[in-house]
Amino acid sequence: MKKILVIGAGRSAVTLIKYLLDNAEANNWSVTVADFSEELAKQAVNNHPNAKAIFFNVTDVVQRENEITAADIVISMLPPSMHIMVAEDCVRLGKNLVTASYVSKEILALDEKAKKAGVLLLNEIGLDPGIDHMSAMQVIDWIKENGGELTSFKSFCGGLVHPDYDNNPWNYKFTWNPRNVVLAGQGTAQYIKQGKYKYIPYHKLFGRTEQMSVLEAGEFEGYANRDSLGYRKAYGLEDILTLFRGTLRRKGFCKSWNMFVQLGMTDDTYVVENSENMTYREFTNLFFPFNNELTVEQKFCNYLSVSKNSEEFQKAEWAGIFLDSEIGMTNATPAQILQAILEKKWTLGAEDKDMIVMQHQFEYMQNGQQKKLNSSLLVFGDDPRYTAMAKTVGLPVAIAVKLILSGTINSVGVKIPTTKDIYAPVLKELKENGINFVEEKL
Amino acid sequence: MKKILVIGAGRSAVTLIKYLLDNAEANNWSVTVADFSEELAKQAVNNHPNAKAIFFNVTDVVQRENEITAADIVISMLPPSMHIMVAEDCVRLGKNLVTASYVSKEILALDEKAKKAGVLLLNEIGLDPGIDHMSAMQVIDWIKENGGELTSFKSFCGGLVHPDYDNNPWNYKFTWNPRNVVLAGQGTAQYIKQGKYKYIPYHKLFGRTEQMSVLEAGEFEGYANRDSLGYRKAYGLEDILTLFRGTLRRKGFCKSWNMFVQLGMTDDTYVVENSENMTYREFTNLFFPFNNELTVEQKFCNYLSVSKNSEEFQKAEWAGIFLDSEIGMTNATPAQILQAILEKKWTLGAEDKDMIVMQHQFEYMQNGQQKKLNSSLLVFGDDPRYTAMAKTVGLPVAIAVKLILSGTINSVGVKIPTTKDIYAPVLKELKENGINFVEEKL
Repeated sequence: MKKILVIGAGRSAVTLIKYLLDNAEANNWSVTVADFSEELAKQAVNNHPNAKAIFFNVTDVVQRENEITAADIVISMLPPSMHIMVAEDCVRLGKNLVTASYVSKEILALDEKAKKAGVLLLNEIGLDPGIDHMSAMQVIDWIKENGGELTSFKSFCGGLVHPDYDNNPWNYKFTWNPRNVVLAGQGTAQYIKQGKYKYIPYHKLFGRTEQMSVLEAGEFEGYANRDSLGYRKAYGLEDILTLFRGTLRRKGFCKSWNMFVQLGMTDDTYVVENSENMTYREFTNLFFPFNNELTVEQKFCNYLSVSKNSEEFQKAEWAGIFLDSEIGMTNATPAQILQAILEKKWTLGAEDKDMIVMQHQFEYMQNGQQKKLNSSLLVFGDDPRYTAMAKTVGLPVAIAVKLILSGTINSVGVKIPTTKDIYAPVLKELKENGINFVEEKL
Repeated sequence: MKKILVIGAGRSAVTLIKYLLDNAEANNWSVTVADFSEELAKQAVNNHPNAKAIFFNVTDVVQRENEITAADIVISMLPPSMHIMVAEDCVRLGKNLVTASYVSKEILALDEKAKKAGVLLLNEIGLDPGIDHMSAMQVIDWIKENGGELTSFKSFCGGLVHPDYDNNPWNYKFTWNPRNVVLAGQGTAQYIKQGKYKYIPYHKLFGRTEQMSVLEAGEFEGYANRDSLGYRKAYGLEDILTLFRGTLRRKGFCKSWNMFVQLGMTDDTYVVENSENMTYREFTNLFFPFNNELTVEQKFCNYLSVSKNSEEFQKAEWAGIFLDSEIGMTNATPAQILQAILEKKWTLGAEDKDMIVMQHQFEYMQNGQQKKLNSSLLVFGDDPRYTAMAKTVGLPVAIAVKLILSGTINSVGVKIPTTKDIYAPVLKELKENGINFVEEKL
């Protein structure tokens, strides 16, 4: 019997754990779900005969060593900064490790030791990073193998509300960590287009979107991610002329979100004075030049050069930023206050489902001809627990674990799933589980 | 004979040292000028009979202790982070210390020890901070003593080119550290107006200026500093309804500078790819959406919604951002590249003089009447060495040293010059040295 240790039973792990339990008997697995909340671990295990739930404190050196020693493979769904403690033990104790997080410098530094120990530390095998790497590399390798030369690669991904539950003017609800959504895009986006480097400061980001349609899901717009340039090396595309990665929202979202950015409401670097005694309306008024003759709504329209009939104003008003409701938060940053206001409106309802949308856009030369190919993914959540996000993060992790235990994946060292030996079998099983890309030659 | 140790002989110290040397014989002072560049120290001393120049390494514990032990008072004109080494020795060895820098947390933590040792650590006694504190507090205390209640305090300061040498379309030259000018305003400006808190994000800062005229120097505009709110406590104005501190530029400067901010050219958080092979023009093109049909000038006008006849475009073009000149810098940030471009245009000429402009604007209630009072300062540089900046930074330091040595100032502990025992005698001597405020009742 193979023993699988899953550390972390939070909401990104539910589909992962379900897959492991559903396949435990057939594969002769024993699954230990370890969490700082034993209750959460028990819920996830749900009395499954092949599984047990334990209280687990990752900083407890003895417990960590004992549990990892007892396992054949370890999955860490901890917050990213905590993986390193687990990874170091895994290398020392000769156990393979799988995570859905970006490779940190600390993890990367274990590469040589891991290779010597014959251990695989497989990271970035969730949704994004994860499915994006695998699906993109499958096409990139296919183009190269067929004599093509890639000239442009654009890739977009978004977590959104399922179309059937999309019933607000923003066409958006929080389907994942709201804080990350409020802070998204801060810094400077960097990419390359037709050989020219391009830099977009945060205050211009949401005004520079690209439009696209994705399969039957309709129209979207994408704003640039910070880190496109780094993918040249990761994907072996050092000489590519255009490389752009972006985040998807429904059409019109970015123009309205940009209002919050322009006002300074997404700032997380300082604490608003006296926020505990302030209303939403007073919070909004912080960001306009002083004027005691105009209403806050009039100041909004004047300052941002929009009319009261505009989409931006309507959405801002719907979001609640002009209400006299109490904020009731002490020592809060603008971003924290904005998040609290939006959570009243954008939280998924008890019956709501979510949706994951991904699209890769390739342009390449083949036999002297310019060709275009889109590869797109749509995944819908089953229900508020088994969300599209939980499925797309958890399934590739679970499948990779299965393939490592069966010996199909047998690399060693610190890896991400950009090579065929990993992505090919994982994508094949993802397809069997309903996560499949649709290719369209344009 | 009283021994004065001056640590640091850089350009902010030249007037300070000149004052000490000019007054050395009359006051029976011996002055030691200590610098890591012995050459610089020698130039400053210029063979004066009451002075000596020495090589000095502030991190050399033995030398530091020896020189401080031999002194009666110490002046540190080192970079701010280095004061603490000197301050700790001064407290331990029972010597008074004067600096023109903001009180750091580390220095503040020495307060109790300094009091026990009977030592004064006097900081923030240069221009800004320094003259601003003293001149503002003199009026604030006068208003309070005369039964007035301050309702509004605004204070502006700028270092600019002397009007006679103001011969470029920006009406600006670098009269101090160019890097600080390029980075100025980053973060979020915070202030209070008529009891309402106000926050201005960086990308809106240069679009929200106040206009004013200062004595015979003409028209200026001021943009908000980051830190106005902290002055409520420092100046004993906890309940004031309006408090605003700003930086002065000539009218029209901010609107044009805002172009660089909007483009992202002042960003210092990342390194531009391939800057070593790039021209000014290519640098500018980094910030526009890709377009290979328009010229860089056309893209500038479209992106920023200005015409080629606009003041902004004319100033940008004059600054050189469209030139085909090589940048010739490796691993440079946008801010570093912009600074290098502007240094070709904004460096003070060999004969140029500078100017310091300060204006405090007070509003107060007295005997049931609303009153307004402006207090303004204009200082012109004598020549490119004895600049207005060097005079206004160095003279208050030198005068304070004189007053401490004579016993006129006899506080102990960590101080800034916001109390009458310090500001009154210093302002009196500053006036005798040509640095005097003009009050205007409005």
